[in-house]
Amino acid sequence: MRPGGRSHEVVIVGGGVIGCSIAYHLARRGQAVTVLERGKACAEASAAAAGMLGAQSEMEDTGPLFQWARRSRAMFPQLAEELKAITGIDIGLVREGLLNVAFSDVQEAELRAREKLQRAAGEQADWLSAAAAARLEPALSQAVRGALYLPDDGQVEAPLLAQAFVQAARQLGANVQEFAQVQGLLTEQGRAIGVMTSDGPLYSDCVIVASGAWSGQLLAGIGVKLPVYPVKGECFSVLTPKPVLRKTLFTPGCYIVPKAGGRLLVGATVVPGSYDRKVSLAGLAELLDRAKQLMPAIGEAEWEKAWSGLRPQTPDGLPYIGKVPAVEGLYAACGHYRNGILLSPITGKVMAELVLGGAGEQGAVSQLELIFEPSRKELHIIEAAH
Amino acid sequence: MRPGGRSHEVVIVGGGVIGCSIAYHLARRGQAVTVLERGKACAEASAAAAGMLGAQSEMEDTGPLFQWARRSRAMFPQLAEELKAITGIDIGLVREGLLNVAFSDVQEAELRAREKLQRAAGEQADWLSAAAAARLEPALSQAVRGALYLPDDGQVEAPLLAQAFVQAARQLGANVQEFAQVQGLLTEQGRAIGVMTSDGPLYSDCVIVASGAWSGQLLAGIGVKLPVYPVKGECFSVLTPKPVLRKTLFTPGCYIVPKAGGRLLVGATVVPGSYDRKVSLAGLAELLDRAKQLMPAIGEAEWEKAWSGLRPQTPDGLPYIGKVPAVEGLYAACGHYRNGILLSPITGKVMAELVLGGAGEQGAVSQLELIFEPSRKELHIIEAAH
Amino acid sequence: MRPGGRSHEVVIVGGGVIGCSIAYHLARRGQAVTVLERGKACAEASAAAAGMLGAQSEMEDTGPLFQWARRSRAMFPQLAEELKAITGIDIGLVREGLLNVAFSDVQEAELRAREKLQRAAGEQADWLSAAAAARLEPALSQAVRGALYLPDDGQVEAPLLAQAFVQAARQLGANVQEFAQVQGLLTEQGRAIGVMTSDGPLYSDCVIVASGAWSGQLLAGIGVKLPVYPVKGECFSVLTPKPVLRKTLFTPGCYIVPKAGGRLLVGATVVPGSYDRKVSLAGLAELLDRAKQLMPAIGEAEWEKAWSGLRPQTPDGLPYIGKVPAVEGLYAACGHYRNGILLSPITGKVMAELVLGGAGEQGAVSQLELIFEPSRKELHIIEAAH
Amino acid sequence: MRPGGRSHEVVIVGGGVIGCSIAYHLARRGQAVTVLERGKACAEASAAAAGMLGAQSEMEDTGPLFQWARRSRAMFPQLAEELKAITGIDIGLVREGLLNVAFSDVQEAELRAREKLQRAAGEQADWLSAAAAARLEPALSQAVRGALYLPDDGQVEAPLLAQAFVQAARQLGANVQEFAQVQGLLTEQGRAIGVMTSDGPLYSDCVIVASGAWSGQLLAGIGVKLPVYPVKGECFSVLTPKPVLRKTLFTPGCYIVPKAGGRLLVGATVVPGSYDRKVSLAGLAELLDRAKQLMPAIGEAEWEKAWSGLRPQTPDGLPYIGKVPAVEGLYAACGHYRNGILLSPITGKVMAELVLGGAGEQGAVSQLELIFEPSRKELHIIEAAH
Repeated sequence: MRPGGRSHEVVIVGGGVIGCSIAYHLARRGQAVTVLERGKACAEASAAAAGMLGAQSEMEDTGPLFQWARRSRAMFPQLAEELKAITGIDIGLVREGLLNVAFSDVQEAELRAREKLQRAAGEQADWLSAAAAARLEPALSQAVRGALYLPDDGQVEAPLLAQAFVQAARQLGANVQEFAQVQGLLTEQGRAIGVMTSDGPLYSDCVIVASGAWSGQLLAGIGVKLPVYPVKGECFSVLTPKPVLRKTLFTPGCYIVPKAGGRLLVGATVVPGSYDRKVSLAGLAELLDRAKQLMPAIGEAEWEKAWSGLRPQTPDGLPYIGKVPAVEGLYAACGHYRNGILLSPITGKVMAELVLGGAGEQGAVSQLELIFEPSRKELHIIEAAH
Repeated sequence: MRPGGRSHEVVIVGGGVIGCSIAYHLARRGQAVTVLERGKACAEASAAAAGMLGAQSEMEDTGPLFQWARRSRAMFPQLAEELKAITGIDIGLVREGLLNVAFSDVQEAELRAREKLQRAAGEQADWLSAAAAARLEPALSQAVRGALYLPDDGQVEAPLLAQAFVQAARQLGANVQEFAQVQGLLTEQGRAIGVMTSDGPLYSDCVIVASGAWSGQLLAGIGVKLPVYPVKGECFSVLTPKPVLRKTLFTPGCYIVPKAGGRLLVGATVVPGSYDRKVSLAGLAELLDRAKQLMPAIGEAEWEKAWSGLRPQTPDGLPYIGKVPAVEGLYAACGHYRNGILLSPITGKVMAELVLGGAGEQGAVSQLELIFEPSRKELHIIEAAH
Repeated sequence: MRPGGRSHEVVIVGGGVIGCSIAYHLARRGQAVTVLERGKACAEASAAAAGMLGAQSEMEDTGPLFQWARRSRAMFPQLAEELKAITGIDIGLVREGLLNVAFSDVQEAELRAREKLQRAAGEQADWLSAAAAARLEPALSQAVRGALYLPDDGQVEAPLLAQAFVQAARQLGANVQEFAQVQGLLTEQGRAIGVMTSDGPLYSDCVIVASGAWSGQLLAGIGVKLPVYPVKGECFSVLTPKPVLRKTLFTPGCYIVPKAGGRLLVGATVVPGSYDRKVSLAGLAELLDRAKQLMPAIGEAEWEKAWSGLRPQTPDGLPYIGKVPAVEGLYAACGHYRNGILLSPITGKVMAELVLGGAGEQGAVSQLELIFEPSRKELHIIEAAH
Repeated sequence: MRPGGRSHEVVIVGGGVIGCSIAYHLARRGQAVTVLERGKACAEASAAAAGMLGAQSEMEDTGPLFQWARRSRAMFPQLAEELKAITGIDIGLVREGLLNVAFSDVQEAELRAREKLQRAAGEQADWLSAAAAARLEPALSQAVRGALYLPDDGQVEAPLLAQAFVQAARQLGANVQEFAQVQGLLTEQGRAIGVMTSDGPLYSDCVIVASGAWSGQLLAGIGVKLPVYPVKGECFSVLTPKPVLRKTLFTPGCYIVPKAGGRLLVGATVVPGSYDRKVSLAGLAELLDRAKQLMPAIGEAEWEKAWSGLRPQTPDGLPYIGKVPAVEGLYAACGHYRNGILLSPITGKVMAELVLGGAGEQGAVSQLELIFEPSRKELHIIEAAH
């Protein structure tokens, strides 16, 4: 549809967990929406993620991103129920907490500082001695200095969350097209009017770019600089006959996430600047050493497989979420780096409200707007390069 | 342990869904139990099953097996909760009912007769005209004569149920050993005293053979004839963008089971007499034709994969569950044919009570004994060949 | 490198069998060359192909494409030796011939006409009665009218040929970069000066677009219309305990290619206009029916797997091979449809000679030029859309 | 067939590379032969092997096993041609030699002693300084003391060799039955008369047990002790863009075998006493450390996959090849440990001659008999436990 009155069609470029959460939230509000994904939906970073909901463990300060993160984390219990009811898919939400482990004085000091900060922000966070940590998780290495216990950080099965968003969006009427080739954005007099695909133009009043590490490429075509770049993360998984861990173990450079059925997921390396998804032997060796340091008994586990994903990173570490300045009708939701799973519920909800203008649900929107407004200043530094 | 007083150790040969359900029920009652599985646990028929809980659709009369089947079906809701609580695994229980579809007068007559029989037995069963069936499931072929609607037959994800039994049994203390090579049964003066493994003898007062289609081979070694034989079933699965079916469709020679996420599982051929698990092109072609007849729109779905499993069948179609006559301490639980998933809860419970003698929980046992006693006469025709 | 004197660097966009054959032929001549592939090399149509060398079976007339096809076919024996010597990879060249099978009078008439045409062109082609065809291939259906026997059409293992080109090119100095993101072509004053990648510009005097079904998207970015479009082909493979076929069977809508080890490869559907690589159940069913018609005993074979590829097709069915008019330094080699494997040797050789200007090997080039010159008129209708 | 005159049927229990080589050699001589394999043919140790033909690198002395090993190695070039001609399968024979690498004085001394021994036995073996070794293989670690260069040790693609034996045997008339369940050996008055299968008895004058690590279990059933036990070997493979190695690198606890297409195969751990094929994380970590020590640049390679196999070992490290004493018509060919691939040609040939009695080809047999006779004394310590 071409403009002239507000179109009811929204086009989202990118069928990862962010694009599909936005589609889900739009479809729930009755909005017609089309997601264009060049391959299989949720096959890139969304499927590779460990699924940690590390609102506290991943955030180093209590700035706007932290506010988003803890709000998003709080949305999961209800979201899990909704998605199960609509799709039959159990997203594997586990709320067993996380141990942020220190091996040195410096790490201990950092974690103790974070404990204070997060308590002041109203979150639970408890520094545990090595002995106390070992009581909680006997498989934890005895060489630790201690650990910051974050009982409210949880986890989900990332591939199932992603798949559930796709299925739920479709059942609510969204059109999620896989293997759709988007060649460029269409603009007219400074406003987005749709996208060019291999099947011809698809017109729309509103286009949302949610293409993860590939978002910058599309925007570059209309002269908008959005410096999102890929940071490869390599992971592996092992199987244990019965669970040896209840809480996620987390330390710089390595985490171990216990999944259902005795599976342990170990991540992740940090390899910036390449779209190459190959898992290197060196990356695996590094992870393996760190995992043994964190939990020596992991050596007895059975090897399952290795994989990688490309996290979309930004120069200042903050995602781009919101309107693209200078191009009416164009939005971006990308650059979530390691927090795409965690932030997917709130990103979907806020984007849906932003696009729909909050009409009719002003009350519900206003609170989010309070967070969103300042964050727009801080999170959404999108510069048009004209 | 060698005899002289009752041993507390039970050895189960076979780590499929039946063996692991018994192990789970024994471990729940505090009984020490070892499961010996020659390969990976739950990797044979248990993982290949479609997971239908067809207490009404699979049973042609209302004899003892039907009584067991409906009792077992009724155990699933609570079992699903228990297994989720212990293991974190969601077994995917769906209680949406099943349509037993007729394409001919003869089939209609059979299904109408079954409707009466099952209603008389106190079950829900409703004959629907083609139009009424199409209202329930619009994707159903318009060429049907009608369908018997069985709202209480459900389904689970068979591989997840099997895995959950293994994990839960282990967490409750059972020792489930994979890649254990059992070479024969050990007997002494007419009683089972354990099994011979590649690591030497493993002594036990009580041995339960739950080796599916391979059960007869082990018993033959001590001269017991248990004529269980394999019946290969070939299956395939397809993916749809969004669910096109809520209820299972069932007709002679073909069923379509809707799984979470738009997956449809189509089964199953009936190829008796071979341990060969290869999927034949002819088998696939036959299934494919029948699936299109049942639900023409399935042609648009995306191919996923094909596989097969070996159902353990018996000459009279009834499983062997109970004590092996003439060999004290030896039990069998095998021959469940297409109903291994459905019957796994009750088989596990009854076998646990039988082995433990019901001591201490007489009340709970007695009801099952009422069913079990007559069924022992009818289900357990185990002949020692001396 | 920026222009000012001829650059020695050639950039090829696309790491399929065409791009890699060009790279191989350039590297053999000592030319520095970089291949940019957005994913894994040879992972798309090149890996999905059945590998038929159907110079006679695929060509309906004896025009320029037929001339190329038979020349290219003739290059395989020596190429197989070269690639084996350099890489150790055996490309599985089989020269057992092909039976072009007729089931109707019309088909027989067409094949008899083709027999005459090809004999006149100096090729072997023999019409066989049903009985004679059955003597050659006893597994062939008895319902055939007869078959045109083409003893010189052969086959290779397409994925191994593709992999061998990549490996050989690399060993001869080519830089084959996987996961390289090409965002657009760079031009200056009507000449190609390189490509823009996610890592910045890569300058070069000469750019070759060999991106298969995606070639048009890249050229569209600089206003060149090259109407290449995808035509999905779905295939499957089965296994037989021992070989049941020596020659390829070919009939409209279905071929069966016998591979080493008793594998039979069955292809292929024709689904134009979509980049979707999903295998549909309907496509599979159609292929399966045709395969049984061609060779009834195939039903006994064991199912292996199904897959698909996107053949790059053009409106007139002829590939685009040569210089892109109006843009100096820009070349295309794409649109080979079902003949990419067959035509890869000659395309690589001709493109290498075209780019290098034939300097120093005028003699060798001249013969090809005879074919290439007229074919340029007919094969290379590339229109700049200004 | 029951006895009364010599049966022409030979039954081989076990469809691995040993059983299938025997079947191939028997079928070539026109002998009717049936191979019974409980699963897929060549799916166990035969498919897991690295394929080294380490006649010199694996043998610590120059005793009878060494004599067999070098004879068997010498059979490969002709065998590769035969198998290619019959089946079309290229077994990937590479004759590039092997470097037996020393990192310490002790290792150097051992290798220098072996150099003398093998030269005295007429084999090529050259001690190289670290610098000379680095000239041959620049990727070799600079920390080595030197290496023993064995130019005549080669390698094949083990899974392809195994598959080629199966296919060739079948094409020459052998009946290789997969998924055949052998329950026991049948004997009568001290002679083997066949085997009991799940389909009933299969009579035969001659039974050959070639069941690898499972051979002892079958023989135990008739009271014959053959102490073959499994020794798990864990391996992994990586991919390099282009070959970085031509010769195999070999050091205690780790080898790196370069395969076609830039693949490197790294093996293998030594885990005795278990039938468990799981790959442990600890095993992988150990291999990985050793591989980096041997060839530091391997860290840059791309991870492909990990797997394991169960080598059949014997107490004295020598295989059992020959007649089983005290049971007429019963033969064994098992216990080849790490040398099953290397020894498969000679084992097949010798067993075929032994079973057929050498009638008609006395000349050809006699030379092998010279080796076989003494080796029978030393290699075939098979004790009947009566």
